[in-house]
Formats: sequence, C-alpha cells, structure tokens
Amino acid sequence: MGKILVINPNTSEEMTNEIRKTAEKIVSPQHNVVVVHSPIGPESIESFYEDHLATIGLIRAAKAHPDADAVVVACFDDPGLYALKEILDVPVVGIGEASFSVALLIGYKFSILVALDKAVALMDHMVLRYGLKDRLASVRALNIPVLDLERSPEKTLKALIETGRKAVEEDYAEVLILGCAGMTDFDVKIEKELKVPVIDPVKAGVKMAEALLDGGFKTSRRALYMSPPPKKIIGEDVFFEKS
Amino acid sequence: MGKILVINPNTSEEMTNEIRKTAEKIVSPQHNVVVVHSPIGPESIESFYEDHLATIGLIRAAKAHPDADAVVVACFDDPGLYALKEILDVPVVGIGEASFSVALLIGYKFSILVALDKAVALMDHMVLRYGLKDRLASVRALNIPVLDLERSPEKTLKALIETGRKAVEEDYAEVLILGCAGMTDFDVKIEKELKVPVIDPVKAGVKMAEALLDGGFKTSRRALYMSPPPKKIIGEDVFFEKS
Amino acid sequence: MGKILVINPNTSEEMTNEIRKTAEKIVSPQHNVVVVHSPIGPESIESFYEDHLATIGLIRAAKAHPDADAVVVACFDDPGLYALKEILDVPVVGIGEASFSVALLIGYKFSILVALDKAVALMDHMVLRYGLKDRLASVRALNIPVLDLERSPEKTLKALIETGRKAVEEDYAEVLILGCAGMTDFDVKIEKELKVPVIDPVKAGVKMAEALLDGGFKTSRRALYMSPPPKKIIGEDVFFEKS
Amino acid sequence: MGKILVINPNTSEEMTNEIRKTAEKIVSPQHNVVVVHSPIGPESIESFYEDHLATIGLIRAAKAHPDADAVVVACFDDPGLYALKEILDVPVVGIGEASFSVALLIGYKFSILVALDKAVALMDHMVLRYGLKDRLASVRALNIPVLDLERSPEKTLKALIETGRKAVEEDYAEVLILGCAGMTDFDVKIEKELKVPVIDPVKAGVKMAEALLDGGFKTSRRALYMSPPPKKIIGEDVFFEKS
Amino acid sequence: MGKILVINPNTSEEMTNEIRKTAEKIVSPQHNVVVVHSPIGPESIESFYEDHLATIGLIRAAKAHPDADAVVVACFDDPGLYALKEILDVPVVGIGEASFSVALLIGYKFSILVALDKAVALMDHMVLRYGLKDRLASVRALNIPVLDLERSPEKTLKALIETGRKAVEEDYAEVLILGCAGMTDFDVKIEKELKVPVIDPVKAGVKMAEALLDGGFKTSRRALYMSPPPKKIIGEDVFFEKS
Amino acid sequence: MGKILVINPNTSEEMTNEIRKTAEKIVSPQHNVVVVHSPIGPESIESFYEDHLATIGLIRAAKAHPDADAVVVACFDDPGLYALKEILDVPVVGIGEASFSVALLIGYKFSILVALDKAVALMDHMVLRYGLKDRLASVRALNIPVLDLERSPEKTLKALIETGRKAVEEDYAEVLILGCAGMTDFDVKIEKELKVPVIDPVKAGVKMAEALLDGGFKTSRRALYMSPPPKKIIGEDVFFEKS
Repeated sequence: MGKILVINPNTSEEMTNEIRKTAEKIVSPQHNVVVVHSPIGPESIESFYEDHLATIGLIRAAKAHPDADAVVVACFDDPGLYALKEILDVPVVGIGEASFSVALLIGYKFSILVALDKAVALMDHMVLRYGLKDRLASVRALNIPVLDLERSPEKTLKALIETGRKAVEEDYAEVLILGCAGMTDFDVKIEKELKVPVIDPVKAGVKMAEALLDGGFKTSRRALYMSPPPKKIIGEDVFFEKS
Repeated sequence: MGKILVINPNTSEEMTNEIRKTAEKIVSPQHNVVVVHSPIGPESIESFYEDHLATIGLIRAAKAHPDADAVVVACFDDPGLYALKEILDVPVVGIGEASFSVALLIGYKFSILVALDKAVALMDHMVLRYGLKDRLASVRALNIPVLDLERSPEKTLKALIETGRKAVEEDYAEVLILGCAGMTDFDVKIEKELKVPVIDPVKAGVKMAEALLDGGFKTSRRALYMSPPPKKIIGEDVFFEKS
Repeated sequence: MGKILVINPNTSEEMTNEIRKTAEKIVSPQHNVVVVHSPIGPESIESFYEDHLATIGLIRAAKAHPDADAVVVACFDDPGLYALKEILDVPVVGIGEASFSVALLIGYKFSILVALDKAVALMDHMVLRYGLKDRLASVRALNIPVLDLERSPEKTLKALIETGRKAVEEDYAEVLILGCAGMTDFDVKIEKELKVPVIDPVKAGVKMAEALLDGGFKTSRRALYMSPPPKKIIGEDVFFEKS
Repeated sequence: MGKILVINPNTSEEMTNEIRKTAEKIVSPQHNVVVVHSPIGPESIESFYEDHLATIGLIRAAKAHPDADAVVVACFDDPGLYALKEILDVPVVGIGEASFSVALLIGYKFSILVALDKAVALMDHMVLRYGLKDRLASVRALNIPVLDLERSPEKTLKALIETGRKAVEEDYAEVLILGCAGMTDFDVKIEKELKVPVIDPVKAGVKMAEALLDGGFKTSRRALYMSPPPKKIIGEDVFFEKS
Repeated sequence: MGKILVINPNTSEEMTNEIRKTAEKIVSPQHNVVVVHSPIGPESIESFYEDHLATIGLIRAAKAHPDADAVVVACFDDPGLYALKEILDVPVVGIGEASFSVALLIGYKFSILVALDKAVALMDHMVLRYGLKDRLASVRALNIPVLDLERSPEKTLKALIETGRKAVEEDYAEVLILGCAGMTDFDVKIEKELKVPVIDPVKAGVKMAEALLDGGFKTSRRALYMSPPPKKIIGEDVFFEKS
Repeated sequence: MGKILVINPNTSEEMTNEIRKTAEKIVSPQHNVVVVHSPIGPESIESFYEDHLATIGLIRAAKAHPDADAVVVACFDDPGLYALKEILDVPVVGIGEASFSVALLIGYKFSILVALDKAVALMDHMVLRYGLKDRLASVRALNIPVLDLERSPEKTLKALIETGRKAVEEDYAEVLILGCAGMTDFDVKIEKELKVPVIDPVKAGVKMAEALLDGGFKTSRRALYMSPPPKKIIGEDVFFEKS
C-alpha cells in the first residue's frame, strides 16, 4: 500500500477538487492517493513567472508529506518538476511527461490541446526540451482562459471536440492529449465523438507514478537530476519557513 | 482481474522461462500474467530476416489467446509490434518501447546495453525511428551472443557492469536499459554496483501494459496503426493454419 | 549482360503487369529485366501486418531466382527490404529508397503522393526512419484505394494532378514522387501539367539497381545489414517449403 | 546614456565583484553599468532547485532598479531569464544565450567549458532547449566546484587550457565558451595559448544588451514571452516583500 | 573610433543609398560607417549563380578597404560570407546571420519575410545550414521582385504588413525579420501595426559588427573558416585585377 | 549515345588525368565521357574562397560544352553545383551528392575520409546542409594535403586503410566514401582490406549522371534551383569573356 501524493502546484481549490475526483477514480486498489495544492503561489500557472512562484509552493507541499511513496506534479507544464526530482528520493512524475510516455505507446503522433495561444508556444518549447518533437502532430488552442475551463464545462467540451477534430483531420494526430489539469474528466466524451484515444493527464500521471513505484524504477542521481550539494542559502526561511 | 499475455517472439524455452520468472514477480496483484513463446520461428532474433519470421509466430501466439486483456511483446527489438497494434483491440506494448517510456521519466539520457555489434546498429535505428534520439546517450555491445547471455550468467553480469560503467562515465548515461529480454533479472545487481537506475525491459513491459489497461488507454485506430482492410491473402493458411 | 530481378511483393497480377511494362521500357540495353510477384501473401500492401506476410513471399520469390544480378523490391513501402539486404549477396534496392536517392539529386524538397490517409503516416514514418525528413516537403493522399489506382486511370491521373499541384504550390515541393508501384506510368502526364519533375518509383528502382550493379557498389555486410548467423528455425519449411 | 543592470543571481559577493570588474571594463562609453547580486538565495547555482530559489532573488533585484534600460542575467544557466523577459519592458539578456549569439558569428561549432559533471548535462539540455545543438561541438567539465573557480585562479586557468585543448583537438571546437560567470576574465590568457577565440560570457552579455538597447530591439510580447495576466497570488509578499 | 565597412554585394546604387541611410542612422557614436557596393556583378542577388558572381565583387570591395575594422555583408543571403571570414583578419558579419543572432535574444520563433517564392527555398536552406531550424516559425514571400521593393515603398509596406500578420497569427512568429537589404527602414512602421518586434537586417548587421569589434571577438581560424593556404591560381588577375 | 561531361573544377592537370581514367573505365557502353578541368582558378579547392573562384571556371567550362547531355562536377565539395543546376537544362550531379545517393542504398551509416582537418568541418557542414546527418557515422582526416594524395599513392593508400579502419571499428561506419576526387581509384584496394564497400566518388558521379539521363529525371525548375531572371550584370565579360 503506497501513498501517491498528487500536488496541484497552483492554489485553486476548485481545480484541486476536480483533480482529486479523477485521481481517486483511477488509482489502483493497492495504493492510496492524496491530493493537495500549493500553499502559496498563483491560482493558475500560465507563464514562466508564475511557474517559478508556483515551484516554491510545490516544494513546500512536497516537504509537508515526507511519507509519500511517489509524487505527481499535477500541472501540464510540469513546473518545478526537475527541482523535485533532484531533492526527493521517491519517484516524481509530471503529468505532462507522463502523458507523453503513455502517448508514445498508443499512437505515433500526438496533438496537445491547450487553453490559450501562449500555451501553444509553451508546449512547443516543452516538447522540444523533452526531445520529442518528431512525435508531435500539433499544439492547438481552445482560446478559453485556464480558470474558465471548469466553470463552463459545456463550452469547454464543445471547444475540445472542435479543436481536437482539426488536430485529427488536418494534422494527422493519432492521440489527443488534454494539455491542462483543468481539462480533467473530459476524455471519455471526446473519445466517443472523435474515435481516437484521448489522454487525461491526471490519469496518466497517477498511472505512471504507480508503474515507477511498483516496478522499482527510481530517479537517476547522475547528471541532470543529481541532487545539489548543501550550501549557504540566504533567506531560506522566506522560501520554506525554516524553523 | 486482467490477463496480461507476454509473448516471447523467439522459440527459446530457456529464455521464455526467465521472462516468466520476472513477469510473475512483477505483475500487480489485481492482474494475471501468462507467458508463452512463438510456436514457430527462430530461437533468437538478431536480424531483420529473423524478425519477419518471428512475427508470423508472434501473431499465431496472440491469436491463440483471444481472451488476453493486454499483450506484451517480449523481445527488445519490438518485432512485429506495429502489426499486432494494427490487428488487436487490446493494448499491445513492446518491451523496447516500454523501457523508453519508463526511462524518459527517471533520467534525461539513457544508454542501451546489447549483446553484439550488429544490435548497436539495430538499436540506433530503432531509437531514430521512435523519434527519441535526443534522449539517447549511447548503445554499447557486450560482445556476447544472445543465446549465451543466460547460459553464463556470471560472465554476462560482469560484462554488463563493465560496459554499463563506460556508458555512465564516458557517455553521461543517467539510466541503463538492458537491451535484450535475455538480460532479465540482472538489473538489481548492476544498480548496486553502478548507482544508476537499470531498466529490466520485461518489468517495464509488464508495468506499462498494466498502466494502459488500468488507465483505459487504447491503441489509436487512426493513421499509423489503422487496421488493414480485409482482402485476399494467398496462402493465409500457410501463415496461420486457417481451418 | 546482367539480370535485374524486379519483385512485386504483393500478389496482384494486374499491378505486376504494369510494373513489367515500365521496367522493360526503362531498362538499359546491356541488362535484362525479369518481373515477378510474390507467390503467396496479400494482393496489396497497406499495413505493417500485410508487410510482414508479403515479406515471406518476397523472400521465396528472391530465392527462386538465385541467378539474379540485382534485385528490386517493387512496392513503395520497401517491405522486407532490410531482410533481403541481409541475406542476398547481390545489390537489393527498394523503389521507395531508390526514389529518394534520385529525388535528392534533382531538387531540394520532395513530396510523396499516396493512395490513402494511412499511407501518409506510413510514409512520414519511413522518411524519418531513412533520416531524410529535412528533404521532405509533404506527403499527400489521393483518397483512392491502392487496387483502384490502375482500374480507373483517368480518375487516378486527375487526382494525382490535383494533389500534386497542392504539394507544389502550398508545400513548396520541387519534385513529386509517385508513392505506390500502382501509380507507375503516370509520371510524364503529370510533369507536362505541373512543370516539375515527377519520379516513377519503378523507373527509379531499375535505374538505381543498374547503377549499383554497374558501379560495383555492394551492400555492406557490417552493422545494420550484417547477415544473420545460421540458427535453429522451427517451421522453416512452413515459410520456405524447404525440401 | 543608458543604464545596463547586470544581476548576478547568486548571492556570492566575491563572484559579483569579478563580474563587476569585467562589466565595467567592457561597457561602451555611452552607457553605464551597474552590477548587483540577488538579495536572497543560494551562493552558487548548480541545480534546478537552486535555479528556482535564485529566480525569486533575481526578480527582486530587477524590481529594485526600475530605471534600468537593459538587464543582463549574469549566470551561465540563464536562470529565471524567461520570467524576466515576460515581466520587464526593457531588453533582458542571459549571459548564456548572449554567448551563443556571439559564437554563431565567429565560428561554426562551439564548445562550452563548465565546472562540474552535472553542468555537462545542464548545458546539453540548455543547448537543446535553445534549438542550437547542430552548432555544439561538446561540453566538457573541469571538475572544479563553482565557488573554487575564482579562489584558485591558477588551477582554474590550467584546467581551462587543458580541457579547452581537448575540445579544440578532439571535438573540432572552433570557439570556446566559458560556461560560468565565475570564469570571467580568463579569456585572453586561454586565447593566447590555444589560438582560438574564447568567449567571456559577461562580456558577451553586456555587448548583446547594448546591441539590443542601441538597435531598438525589444522583447516580443507574443507567444513564449507574453506577459502573464494579473491574477490572485497567495503569499505574494513572501516572494516580493509587497508593502 | 573604428571603421565599419558595409558592403552591398550587388551593384545597385539605389539600394546602396538606402542601406547607407540606415547604417549611418544606427551606428554608435564611437564608430564610423562606410557603405559601398560591389564594383562588378549583378544588380540584385536572387540565385546561387548571382551569388557566386557577386562574391568576386564583394572580395574586390573588401580588399579596397584594408583599413576596415569590421565588415558587414549587406545582402540577406549572406553571399560570399564564409569566403570573407576565411581571408580577413577583422570581424565579418552577414546581415542574415546577424539578424538571427538578434532574433534569438528577443523571441523564441522568428519568421522571415522575403521578396519572391524562390527566396523561400533559399531561406529555408540557409536556416537549415545555420543549424537554426528549431527557431524558425516560417518563411513567407511578398511576391514583389527585389528591385521593385524600394521603387514602390507603399506597396511594399502594405505587403510586408499583410504577410507579416499571417506569420504572426498563423505561424506563431514572435519576431519578424525583413529578409532583404532592400526592405531596410520599414521596420518601425510594421512594428506599430503588428505589435511584434521587426528586425531591420542592416541595423542588426551594424550592431553585431560593433559588438564583435568592441568585445574583442574575432573569427576563429580553426576548422570551417581556416584561411586557405597560398597556392597557384590561374587567372587571379581576372578575378582581382592583380597588378 | 549521350555525352557525359565531367568537369574537374580545379586546374590541376594531374588530378584531371586520374579522374579521366576512372570515368572512362566506369562509363556505360551506350554513353561517352569527356573529362575537362576549369580553364581558370585554383589548382586545388580546400576553402570557400577557392570554391568561389573555381565556380567561375566551372561555369566557363560548362558553357564551352553546350552539347553535353549531363554534367558531373568532379570535386567532392560540390563547388558551384547549385549554380550549374540553376543555369543548365541537362542533369547536373556533384560527386559529393552522388556518393551520398549511392551510400544510402548500400548501408545505413557512412563515413567520409578527407585529406585535412579543415575538410572535416567542410564535410560536416555539407552533410548538414544536405539534410543527411542522421546517416553520417563520421568524417575523418588523413592529414595529407590534397595535392599530395596522388603524388605518393602508397602513403595515401596506407592512410586511407588506417583511417577507414577506425571509422569502421569505432564509429560503426558501414560504408566508406573517399571524400576527394584526388582519392579516385583506391576503392578496390581498401575494400579488400577492410571488407566494407568503399565509394569512389568519380564512379558514383558518372553512374548517377547516367541514371538521371537514362531515367529522364531532370532538375526541378521550382524553388531552390529556379533559374535566375536575366538582369544587368556589370563586368559579365570579366567572368565569362563575353564577346
């Protein structure tokens, strides 16, 4: 019985609740899932600036659960992911990277559906950074702000279907990825309409975290994710309320 | 309770037994694993020629288990994988691609350890074809024929450690992948020695198949893996003993 | 005087006749061309599944002509090509790869015209695997099934011109490649209309095979195409009617 | 007369002084350079974890100088660079990216010399992310911790020359880049020894900032660096001492 | 006080005057700019053939100013650039490469606006050759011949705005580059309309040449730009009026 | 009966004679080969500077043979190749690109053997420009100046074998390409020693030119090789002795 800690790195209670519903539905019987959000930081993460602020809260949240057996970072941009991989001994998975690991197994090219135009560039950049651009069909935006996604679910669903159809028909996408934790739980309805697999990133995150935990696959301590050596950090208490 | 069918596409009883041991050890409590090998074909797969012959046996084996809930192709070259994805409705995972999906989550660059020189070229080609070359540190050969890997386990372990060390120290590999089903069960010993995560491909294959099954992630029927339309096939009985 | 063996790996008599016409027209006076088709297998090849079945027939056909001086695999997907390269001592050329070798010399970017949507993904994948994606302008589908291509030549020609025009005008294609052996002999008519070179893959295949034969260029026996070592193959007679 | 603000995002007084010396020496007569360091955060930046902490200090430092006409982030990893580009109206340049923009103009392939092994992976990752890997000859480590670089300058110089020579002779580097602000001011001595241009990143950063400022080249507000919309940020005072 | 020599490698007096206006406006107070054109060669450069002819004139022009402290090649195709880098001791910058070095610092993806369709292919090829294709959003043509660009400035401006808008809206361009010296001085007007930074290549060329000169960054003499050894050249006087 | 014009773009009589011997030996019986050299220019081509000078002579030589049915540019750097493709109506092949088109058909990865270090960079750059870097195993230098290659054939052969062996054993080269016309006629001896195919570029050039001619494959007039429009060229007589 392992404890899977899912951290929504933004501070939206609403989005955290949606993530919790999905995570609890999908978790394997032999594991337990705990879903929390960052204690401080922005209520949604749509920029590098907010990504940095959110990361401080994310690290605080992770440190508050030292008994977690695996950690899922539940924002599609994977903010602060590499930092957590460096400092935690347990497996850490971002829902972005988890979605890609799943997508690679069920189709050749995937498209990512995102909220706004800026996220198209963010995703393009992330896919390049992850070395996966040969598997990317396209990134397409709904033109709905992140915080509105769950507030008007019918509008969101309609936009996801319309935008997803273009990805499938014009860009040859074989798999669609919902590129925002706020899009959780729309996957089945879109699949029915478009007849292609749709990846809910929260589901992918939980499943990949379980696979790493159960398979005994740990984060490498060499090279990119090597833990930083201890050193003087001015104002460490500001970041982490050291006491 | 799902049935995970693991097919060793070569006809070696010995290697199949090793694969079975690993698969039974790693499978989740809520699933059941069945390990078989191809009924016909070569006793090891080290070329494109043998890959084609093995695929016929692989398809026969898959067809003999129509109740499987997920299928794992247990040869690191992923022979016949795309063909199975086309014709089966359940998730199909190759242990090669599964190892990569895991590796992406636990390190940036991975190295693959293979039996012989020819496999270096085969792996290079496979990684390029999978669009993952930016994540590849290196492919290195042990210079031990595939069928000898399990016959002299001490020699194999020693070679894996020596070759793996070069990958880690000279090529900056963060993760090592055992590039042959015949190398199963050496992972823990190498990890202890080299202090980097080592992926046993059979474990990765079973875990990824479970994740797809439990997460509801199905193979896309669009584009690359679209099922072929029914058509006249001369000598279909030769291939599949139609009756 | 060399014997160029052209094997259509599918079992369609009709398509084989068209290929024969083109091959006999284009072969150099100092060579002789023999065109055959696979003795068993599917009547058209539009999937990985069929590709594997066709390969068995392809190998049988090649083995039935041990006096061939060079072999051309006359299906644009180049099915079984690498296997033949491994086991034959004479030059072996796929009409897909041959078309690319020609295209590189007469323009910077080429487009491939294919029958159906699935083939767009197959070609994309093949061009990536051949390491040539920087030279690819686009792949575009006619939306006509392979076996209908030669049955309604006027419809096919019209579709080739319309689709080719889009490739030239919208994708900046400098060269068009007819991405199916079933499209043989349409090249000149399309060239007249669109004013760009059009590569008939059967012509390219025969010309490249002759060039390798006359230039003394043999398949490398190192690395990727190294011949497989002899080994036990269960049911070898099933594949090749050993006697 | 413009004010070029150079921020060392770590909190080392010593390194800041070295950066100041170089910056003041190289700044154009029509500009003024001010060099400061982050008020809070780690004393050196060698991980993603520290990168995030440093970014908070970096943003604070930038906000403390609202009259700056251009900003230079003086750590080779370019920490927090994209966040600053999003929120500032004036040109912002990282010394890493600035070194690459210069290197592209004076040679085809460059090598980066870094302090420790982990930084090899960090740089590889950064160059991939910047889309410049075709111009990279190699990244090589001195195996000297960042904070020791300036404490034992003779040892550092010797290591830079030895490591740089390997990059030139074995990796065909045409240009060497000093991959750490702590290596500032060694450039001329290495150039004399190795006869290839050596880029001091602090110099490159100041020169590129001036070029953007004087040329009227501003950060794009479209796509990747689009400013984030105002939103609720819990604990904003923790980050930025709002009052 | 350095002398920046700007050479228009074509022989158009008109275009040279426009380039001169821009260069004199943008040059730093501590430098002096001299703008000349090739003494012989084509009046515009729109092909490889003309590129070779223009290079002879370019070299003559450079040799006529042995006191130049830095040289700018003021044609966006960077004709003869590598040859000049080989034979001159002072920094040599092409306005194409200079624009890219600037663009990398102010946005992630850039689009290039060119005169005619052929230049789309030329630019695609140049960006690939420079190893920068991951940063390219698109190349788009105005469909106005080079020599007409400055003859009908209103038409040119309108076409630049319309074509640039498509690059921004459809291709996610963050920065626009004017891909021809003949488009100089339109930058500010387009920026006002489209709200994205627009790079005037002549400005970028002058600023980058100054940065190299002032920063002490010299062309590498290793590998690609190594100076050719002296040797017998038949007809050297034809090329360079030796006497 | 076609006339294949082979132009050595340098002015070395000696090297031209060697090229002639090879070309006459390899040409098909139904064609005729004429081998000439540039009337003016450098006696060897080892830099961009010399490449530009040689191109003027190359164009003169081509214009002197208006009855040629196909043209081969017999210098491995393919100098002036694109310019000739633009202005001639008949097929034009460079021996560099021709070698690559052949290599792609007989092995997956090729290595290029060159005379001097500078050529390593030139070749790397050329392979990138041709979009073929995924097929390149390595470029290795003999460290023998171009003009000495044929003057001391025994030394050259020995160096080719030693350097080629490293490419095969350390870089996994499957095919070796002799990267200089001056290395013609060493292929068979190296093949015997190293047991891998060796491509003589002069042979590849002649065979590919014949294939284009006989197959009816013409240079595209679209995009990259579009013919330049007629325009005023000052000093055209200087270049081409117009009269």
